[in-house]
Amino acid sequence: MEIQNSILNKEIHEQPEVFERLIYADHTHIKALAKDIREKHIKYILIAARGTSDNAGRYAKYVLGAFNGLVVALAAPSLSSIYETIQNYEGALVLGISQSGKSPDIVGVLAEAQKQGALTACITNEPDSDMAQVSHHIIDIMAGAEKSVAATKTYTAQLTAIALLSAYLAQSDSMLEELKKVPLAANSIFRHEEEIAQLAERYRYMKHCVTIGRGFNYSTAFELALKLKETTYTIAEPYSSADFLHGPVAMVEDGFPVFVIAPTGKMIPLMDQMIATIHQLKGEVIAISDNELILSRAHSLLPLPIGLPEWLSPITAIIPGQLFVMNLAGTRGYPIDTPRSLSKVTETK
Amino acid sequence: MEIQNSILNKEIHEQPEVFERLIYADHTHIKALAKDIREKHIKYILIAARGTSDNAGRYAKYVLGAFNGLVVALAAPSLSSIYETIQNYEGALVLGISQSGKSPDIVGVLAEAQKQGALTACITNEPDSDMAQVSHHIIDIMAGAEKSVAATKTYTAQLTAIALLSAYLAQSDSMLEELKKVPLAANSIFRHEEEIAQLAERYRYMKHCVTIGRGFNYSTAFELALKLKETTYTIAEPYSSADFLHGPVAMVEDGFPVFVIAPTGKMIPLMDQMIATIHQLKGEVIAISDNELILSRAHSLLPLPIGLPEWLSPITAIIPGQLFVMNLAGTRGYPIDTPRSLSKVTETK
Repeated sequence: MEIQNSILNKEIHEQPEVFERLIYADHTHIKALAKDIREKHIKYILIAARGTSDNAGRYAKYVLGAFNGLVVALAAPSLSSIYETIQNYEGALVLGISQSGKSPDIVGVLAEAQKQGALTACITNEPDSDMAQVSHHIIDIMAGAEKSVAATKTYTAQLTAIALLSAYLAQSDSMLEELKKVPLAANSIFRHEEEIAQLAERYRYMKHCVTIGRGFNYSTAFELALKLKETTYTIAEPYSSADFLHGPVAMVEDGFPVFVIAPTGKMIPLMDQMIATIHQLKGEVIAISDNELILSRAHSLLPLPIGLPEWLSPITAIIPGQLFVMNLAGTRGYPIDTPRSLSKVTETK
Repeated sequence: MEIQNSILNKEIHEQPEVFERLIYADHTHIKALAKDIREKHIKYILIAARGTSDNAGRYAKYVLGAFNGLVVALAAPSLSSIYETIQNYEGALVLGISQSGKSPDIVGVLAEAQKQGALTACITNEPDSDMAQVSHHIIDIMAGAEKSVAATKTYTAQLTAIALLSAYLAQSDSMLEELKKVPLAANSIFRHEEEIAQLAERYRYMKHCVTIGRGFNYSTAFELALKLKETTYTIAEPYSSADFLHGPVAMVEDGFPVFVIAPTGKMIPLMDQMIATIHQLKGEVIAISDNELILSRAHSLLPLPIGLPEWLSPITAIIPGQLFVMNLAGTRGYPIDTPRSLSKVTETK
């Protein structure tokens, strides 16, 4: 009951509607930013973000890299906020991503960039926030107020905004057409809600796990791990499959739970090899996938809708994870909307 | 006995000598790279690296950011190796960091950059490697062959090379003078060897932990966590104190072990606040520090030499961690030089 009536449950279910609103909205601001990036010969993008929004930054790194040839750097805000040093942002677009637009360290990076004459932009749910005040371009994700401490709809709306920006940068009508598939695909995930709730039971006593995704879904691995930590207090560590094989694979032993995020696409052969390695070490694979090969080799399944191209899959691939995490917290008797030790807006220096 | 006779033990102890050799070597190649970065008006640095070398990249991000005003991006090698897309490296220095210089994905990023006419460089222990072939500038860390699977002396030698590059970029004699303190400071850590071996006993049954560092020592948090995972199979997750407070702090409960890396410097007030939070949640603090305030508030101490400036502290701050990890593996009866599931050179696509 607590699950059904939680704000988190409501906000998870609002996502298809949030996508629909953003995808069919007036895109004047996104187009203007895309135009500025092209005309100002931007050399690279520096993203300033924290927590969930930083995971949206990880998605941006792959999407803007793959479709727009742009190198994306993630900022180290403490260089200015603590060490009080100044970086040279010449040639950069400095892009802030923050639900609330309030964290002083993120606002500080954008303010300095604007002072230097660099192009600044932000992706936010609060178009009147401090961060927006220091941005030349403001992309409003229009997700509606988010009240549960664990961010869900604002994260996937940030991804959608980034996907739209990439499509306008590429001036690709086919990318915009593909985006229109997202709301329906997201909606279809809720058909599996009961299975996912059932599956959470199996992991009642899971103390730790790793989450593995690569490429576009590197972001999903990070975001799923963050949700597991915040809401279910499970020790969850995210990896790319390549980084995982460069050391951490040594941890895997009998029954070690590994969440593998592997939507259909170019990563399938590598993710399949990865699963073979985990099988050899007797680890337990929980697959988040629409791919038959991957699903057939997993102990537990979090199914994804079929037919979404890989580059858009992160927008929906986190949703079964959000449902799983919510149910796991419920099964453990943890507060769904107000995890211990956290508040909605964390203001770090 | 197995510990004393291990290759890892030998290689850990070679570090002061490796630093001495590199710091007093002929720096013609490093100076030439610094000159090129200045004269070619490099806008930002893109680092391609994996595993331990990626942690050296994290150090570069802070040092080159703080002293040289440079923005550093960490590459996403799969954009080229898997997605077969091309990024525009105009205005960038593309810097490969790899002990062996062999990983095909890293070599691929540098080859593409060179093809586009971008400036390329590498930091490596193998100046004849594939990676060196596609680099305009080669910085040889001269650490001698590294045979233990867990990298130690090549990591700290990479940091030393980065510190030298930063000093030459800043044209700062005082930075070069400060570097000369490193070998002796490193050597003094071995005075605490017995205490560290003793301390490892307390953590015989530790299943998981987090490691926290920020700024310059963000790299140390990552590298300590990686060594704990590779060699002791402990589930160890690295964080900056800011990211930790944006969610993962919810995991901390009675007795939860938190390694806090806090050498004297600008991060002390924030690390002290962080420790107060961990105390409130009844976590256990293991401090890696030379700072009296921090050491007085910890359950367990891994002491650091006094007098090294914060920017150089990551070169020595990992050494007590290396000794701790080696002793923990020994106490647990794990193979010191050949952790399960790993090989020395991991070639990922």
